[in-house]
Amino acid sequence: MLLTTPLTIRSGQKGCPPLRKNRDAINIHPLQTGGMLDEAAMTALAAYGDGYAICDYCNGCLDTIANPPVKDLTREILPSFLGCDTVRLTTGAREGKFIVFHALTRPGDTILVDANRHYSTHVAAERTGLRIVEVPNSGYPEYRIDVRDYIPLIERHRPALMLLTYPDGNYGNLPDAGELGAIARRYGVPLLINGAYSVGRLPVSLAETGADFIVASAHKSMASTGPLGLLGMRKKWEGVLLKTSEKYPRKEIEFLGCTARGAGVVTLMASMPRLVERVRTWDRQVAKARWFCREMEKLGIRQLGEKEHRHDLIAFESPRLYEISQSRRQKGYFLYKELKKRRIWGIRPGQTRKFKVSTFAATREELQAVIDAFRDIIERFA
Amino acid sequence: MLLTTPLTIRSGQKGCPPLRKNRDAINIHPLQTGGMLDEAAMTALAAYGDGYAICDYCNGCLDTIANPPVKDLTREILPSFLGCDTVRLTTGAREGKFIVFHALTRPGDTILVDANRHYSTHVAAERTGLRIVEVPNSGYPEYRIDVRDYIPLIERHRPALMLLTYPDGNYGNLPDAGELGAIARRYGVPLLINGAYSVGRLPVSLAETGADFIVASAHKSMASTGPLGLLGMRKKWEGVLLKTSEKYPRKEIEFLGCTARGAGVVTLMASMPRLVERVRTWDRQVAKARWFCREMEKLGIRQLGEKEHRHDLIAFESPRLYEISQSRRQKGYFLYKELKKRRIWGIRPGQTRKFKVSTFAATREELQAVIDAFRDIIERFA
Repeated sequence: MLLTTPLTIRSGQKGCPPLRKNRDAINIHPLQTGGMLDEAAMTALAAYGDGYAICDYCNGCLDTIANPPVKDLTREILPSFLGCDTVRLTTGAREGKFIVFHALTRPGDTILVDANRHYSTHVAAERTGLRIVEVPNSGYPEYRIDVRDYIPLIERHRPALMLLTYPDGNYGNLPDAGELGAIARRYGVPLLINGAYSVGRLPVSLAETGADFIVASAHKSMASTGPLGLLGMRKKWEGVLLKTSEKYPRKEIEFLGCTARGAGVVTLMASMPRLVERVRTWDRQVAKARWFCREMEKLGIRQLGEKEHRHDLIAFESPRLYEISQSRRQKGYFLYKELKKRRIWGIRPGQTRKFKVSTFAATREELQAVIDAFRDIIERFA
Repeated sequence: MLLTTPLTIRSGQKGCPPLRKNRDAINIHPLQTGGMLDEAAMTALAAYGDGYAICDYCNGCLDTIANPPVKDLTREILPSFLGCDTVRLTTGAREGKFIVFHALTRPGDTILVDANRHYSTHVAAERTGLRIVEVPNSGYPEYRIDVRDYIPLIERHRPALMLLTYPDGNYGNLPDAGELGAIARRYGVPLLINGAYSVGRLPVSLAETGADFIVASAHKSMASTGPLGLLGMRKKWEGVLLKTSEKYPRKEIEFLGCTARGAGVVTLMASMPRLVERVRTWDRQVAKARWFCREMEKLGIRQLGEKEHRHDLIAFESPRLYEISQSRRQKGYFLYKELKKRRIWGIRPGQTRKFKVSTFAATREELQAVIDAFRDIIERFA
């Protein structure tokens, strides 16, 4: 077989990756603030960058590799960090959700999810052929999930599984996972916590919620290279989720025998000491986020979602910035471009009326610069 | 929620990744020789190592990101490289196989696979609930797959799908994919090629095989950081495989909306110019592999699999080394340790009677050193 097209490409030509230009900006990008690597993780990344480098001493099972110490990570450190019995690496939170859906339910089953769920929860349920029933939020401006609203829907739909997004990626709302865990136990419905925006940022313990499963996103909130996620579970579910191949007794079927076979795993290892430390100082993150909200509101930019806010992910609305944008040549891109000029990175191009930020990675001084930038933009163009 | 366990870990303590020690050895590890990064790819890796760094300019769809140029890669470069209409990124070859199985078949359907298939083909089929029928190989010593043997099994089992491993990972045998493509068309059975050990090493064109799908492994054979794979297909299958969410029209269901959201993608981009060049010189790789086989056979180490051999992945058997190992304290680990002493990396610990190597990354001079090492070990301990 020969190549049909005489393809020619050379370094520096079309298709080659440029160097990133935004690394030195103040980063308030909601997807990125929890995933940035420090020097130790970057060193680990380079050391294991080659394909299959982490498999040097693999004996047929990723979770039991002793060098690099994937075994310590997955069998001791992560179960302790997540407060659960058993942890498996996945290629991301969504892949973990699909694994739980696929192992626990049958096509046509109903699952209950909060209305603030990530799009990938919906798509993973579609892929499994599930009927999705949503527990509504309180609507504008707080969009709260009251977990007691699961109860009538449990009684009406008898779901095979429930999911709670903790917190959601739109408003950073933290619903009462512990109360829902108690409800789940009372009704005998398994509960899955989507901790993509919590595990690695704030203290989370599956045991203390009373839930059955938790998924995490290492590239989103655990200072790791993607794609990498975690699936934590109670011991009672091992038989269902970790079923092995009839022919290959070490290969877990739902994990296709192996998952995150790449350098991301060692970046997570290298970041673990920092993650253990940073979740302890979560109260300072919350204080910083609240202060930022108050300062933005002084500029007429309204914080959406729960008040007092309890997470670094924050949605704002600003009719004033939207009005300004309408008179500018760049329209919706105006805010993005004005901030970028000021070395502030993370507002989505096109958004002015409503936008999201994360205060997780920036210092108070940097966030003061962000606030000053918003003030300057409003005063200059209003 | 608070952490139940007062977990404490620090850099350098248990669970932290060590630096790899084997990078400067002569690498003949079958999993690793096709996945090693050059300097350009390492630079790209560091630039995009942060979680979600490749998503700087994402507009909701990985394949359409313009910076870094994922769009050029997936819409132009890779379809041309694979000789197919449409390519999607996946997290690996096995994930691509599961996507095809899951989208095309129903639980209880039968698929035909060659007996040399990778274990993950079996596990992906189990996950989908499929009945697996294997097309036998010719047995010891060549283990050839004669694709005409698919015909009676097609007629008997009326499979929903067929799979061919091209080449397999045990013997490096390259069955006649073109003839099987013609058979597949004649009987109207979709054909999936597992090109994990071919795409990125030798010229492969889906169009020229007449197959419907091809999966590739970027961390195995395309000089990329894992986990990263490709799924190439004919246009006619887009409707089945790329179906989008009812609620999210840009999110493809079988791909959970997004797949390889990490630095691996830019390492593949950076490596593409080298890959385009290296597949052109495949005949030199084959000549090198054959020369290596001949030299090993002179030492009484027998090459298994097709003769003349046509791939860098080679299985050998050596009753003599096995006999020696039985008299050594380290038993099966003896060969691995003797080679490691000589800075030769890649023989699986425990193997002596039968072992696999890949000649892909090593130069003739380095392979001569490997041959000399085997000679020395045999002469010293026999």
